[in-house]
Amino acid sequence: MALQQPGKLNFNFGHIQLPSVPSSSSSKAKARPSSAWDADSTYGAESDITEVVTPGTLEPKRAKIWHVPMSIKAQRTSNPIRKIMEKITSQKRDPIPGKPVIPLSLGDPTAFGNLQAPEVLNETMIALIREGKFNGYGASSGLDAARAAVAKRFSTSTCVYKPEDVIIASGCSGALEIAINGMLDEGDNLLVPRPGFPLYQVLAESQGASVREYDLLPEKGWQADLEQLEALIDARTKALVINNPSNPCGSVFPREHLEGLLDIARRHTLPIIADEIYGEMTFEGHPFHPLAALSEDVPIVSVGGLAKQFLVPGWRVGWILLHDPVGALGAVREGFGRLTQLISGANTLVQGAIPRVLCPKPGSAEAASLAAADAHYMRTLQDSAAFTYERLARIRGLQPVAPQGAMYVMVQYDPTVLPAFANDAEFVERLLSEEAVFVLPGACFGVEHFFRVVFSGPRSALADAFDRIEAFCNRHAVSVDGGG
Amino acid sequence: MALQQPGKLNFNFGHIQLPSVPSSSSSKAKARPSSAWDADSTYGAESDITEVVTPGTLEPKRAKIWHVPMSIKAQRTSNPIRKIMEKITSQKRDPIPGKPVIPLSLGDPTAFGNLQAPEVLNETMIALIREGKFNGYGASSGLDAARAAVAKRFSTSTCVYKPEDVIIASGCSGALEIAINGMLDEGDNLLVPRPGFPLYQVLAESQGASVREYDLLPEKGWQADLEQLEALIDARTKALVINNPSNPCGSVFPREHLEGLLDIARRHTLPIIADEIYGEMTFEGHPFHPLAALSEDVPIVSVGGLAKQFLVPGWRVGWILLHDPVGALGAVREGFGRLTQLISGANTLVQGAIPRVLCPKPGSAEAASLAAADAHYMRTLQDSAAFTYERLARIRGLQPVAPQGAMYVMVQYDPTVLPAFANDAEFVERLLSEEAVFVLPGACFGVEHFFRVVFSGPRSALADAFDRIEAFCNRHAVSVDGGG
Repeated sequence: MALQQPGKLNFNFGHIQLPSVPSSSSSKAKARPSSAWDADSTYGAESDITEVVTPGTLEPKRAKIWHVPMSIKAQRTSNPIRKIMEKITSQKRDPIPGKPVIPLSLGDPTAFGNLQAPEVLNETMIALIREGKFNGYGASSGLDAARAAVAKRFSTSTCVYKPEDVIIASGCSGALEIAINGMLDEGDNLLVPRPGFPLYQVLAESQGASVREYDLLPEKGWQADLEQLEALIDARTKALVINNPSNPCGSVFPREHLEGLLDIARRHTLPIIADEIYGEMTFEGHPFHPLAALSEDVPIVSVGGLAKQFLVPGWRVGWILLHDPVGALGAVREGFGRLTQLISGANTLVQGAIPRVLCPKPGSAEAASLAAADAHYMRTLQDSAAFTYERLARIRGLQPVAPQGAMYVMVQYDPTVLPAFANDAEFVERLLSEEAVFVLPGACFGVEHFFRVVFSGPRSALADAFDRIEAFCNRHAVSVDGGG
Repeated sequence: MALQQPGKLNFNFGHIQLPSVPSSSSSKAKARPSSAWDADSTYGAESDITEVVTPGTLEPKRAKIWHVPMSIKAQRTSNPIRKIMEKITSQKRDPIPGKPVIPLSLGDPTAFGNLQAPEVLNETMIALIREGKFNGYGASSGLDAARAAVAKRFSTSTCVYKPEDVIIASGCSGALEIAINGMLDEGDNLLVPRPGFPLYQVLAESQGASVREYDLLPEKGWQADLEQLEALIDARTKALVINNPSNPCGSVFPREHLEGLLDIARRHTLPIIADEIYGEMTFEGHPFHPLAALSEDVPIVSVGGLAKQFLVPGWRVGWILLHDPVGALGAVREGFGRLTQLISGANTLVQGAIPRVLCPKPGSAEAASLAAADAHYMRTLQDSAAFTYERLARIRGLQPVAPQGAMYVMVQYDPTVLPAFANDAEFVERLLSEEAVFVLPGACFGVEHFFRVVFSGPRSALADAFDRIEAFCNRHAVSVDGGG
């Protein structure tokens, strides 16, 4: 947990974090009471100070106070999780003295240090730094070589990407921002999964658009409720977001289910934003099907990145892949290119490393090293997934939904067995304060009576955490037969 | 020019680039004529294909065509320079066979390779990669240590920043995006300098806001026309952008001039966005005054970054500094924090290196090494500035405005001496095609009869370019006395 201060909880999940927002009054203003402003004798009486002058208003009649308002866009950029999390973590930085918090909340496989970026990536970066040739500006849509490598790596027999089908962005979040900003206007809506990653909502609302949530069904391994999904579509629906494999569910859609989703998109001429950041991270028996490979007509805007698979979420390099089988994405392609200019693209050093890590020379030592690193990583995740599932499944009142990929499991708790908690936020708050285990409540993802566990940490931490969760549940469980 | 393909011109200036935008029709669609879509027998006649169906429209009556429109935001995100540059560079990739283009167009000090990032920065980055502790997510507003280092480095005796006054962003462009997105609404306006860096306009218009240009006067060393500036302010003016030192002018405002600008801001309760990316890059006799250090009341949102001073523009790490002496920026501070969540912040590896390069231990070998690298860099720029000025000043029809900082000089040409060109874009186009020297026309920055020269390249390239420019002007100059 190198990037966190000791004893400080980082409310980070998936690629979203809650910023530590300072209070709205300036501490500096207080520290400088004798500024020229305060000293100005024409602004004496306290009552005068209540007249707020917005910038640009000419010649205010009385005392003027600087007040710089927040833009509508900033007002709209509201993380729905913050309120939930603030309550949970208030005054809980060190809930049990001498018993460090085990954070199973962070969607960051590097958080514990047990998993590390592949050596080939590190050595490539070091070589590029020494060469000094990837320090300058690149094209805002990405370096040609990086775009070509992403195109090559993610092409399939049925979907061949060209370099110009790829846009490199500042992380997968940056890719999603471009996709959503480039396709949605104020008043539009976006179909998103529930439970789902909250950034879709933050991005859509930031643009004055909204989300409509389609249900993923735990009893069907988190497949979507297609009928309910289809009923949400109206004339202002601009795109369907499919997150496969899923954060927070750890589920992987089978091919038939993806085809069912494509059918709906086709019937409603609805383009799909496919968030496939966990695309190559699935477990045995659950093959990943890139949505674009299955689509002969539906336009697919896929997003991904180095973050999860190469264990460098902080490096902020992701991408958009445009699959445009019927020539529908021309305007959007142009629009995405325009939007990349706003922040001038992603880190060029990391982009410079992309060709070697995404497309190592077949048969080379580097290819073997990358394959071995990936195999170790996926074996670790798969073993931890099985351990997590088995361990949690035998705890009274808990029912995990078996994970199929990524590094998440959603765990349902039975409120009739564990009636002490008004909701999952309270469950999580009490678990943190009583056992120093930090997980995220279902409320963060739009569902009730669930919590999300990230199982990428070391076995010892997981085992310790699950023991604590078991003790917690045993302590609070009531006999269902015997009544509350 | 490591990041450019051979023979490919990169229309990059300051931190803005023109992306290479693919044509609007999908090449893939053409490459796959027998898709299921085309094969569908119900969609036979060509005439049917004219009916465009927007996404979400239910049950189109006849043949439907996928058409995904570009958002209004993307439509508004239009780089005014692109049209100018497309004309200049069309078909000019290799204007003179065997005579490589000398690009004095790129606002990128690393473009030629003669200037390199400081060794301390490189070695710090390499150490951080080997440690593997800066790969995970950081807080979206920036790592605490990076924020603290920026606060410390840019504090002055009159303006002491705290870590929470700093927001780390994806480059200085990302910082400007947050500042402008966080303060301006649709219909608002922003005062920007002319000549000036076009990104301000791109960002403001992308939000549905507009810019109003105040004039910088070449005859006054590019100081602002204060009277004209003040007359532009109205009730929808949300902020004043001051770019000091200036891109494209290479000018540095004296203290008295900055105080004049502060007076106007104070009278109109107008916050200032101070783009100080070239802040510590000024020449002898032209000291830089951070605007915040002079302001006892006007709220200052300063932006900067590692890009220019540490020669890593591609690494995309910049920052916002909030100077809030009268407690006016509380809402904006909160808003900026919200906006950082959209793309989850900047590269953590580079952020990890910030403390060591911005705040090396006084008296340490690292401090000495950084100081020596900076001294070499600034000596090179200052010598090149003098060489550039002297060399261009003696060319017929040209009048450079003496540079005082950064790496730019604006050169005025006299259309009565050089009447062959309808405008500066044509001057630049002909210079490129006839002499393979690439500079940017004044039109890119909002002024006429100027071009911008970047003088960070090696002396030999500059000398060669200036010889070519001289030959060009001599060839086209007419005797003013003798008439055209």
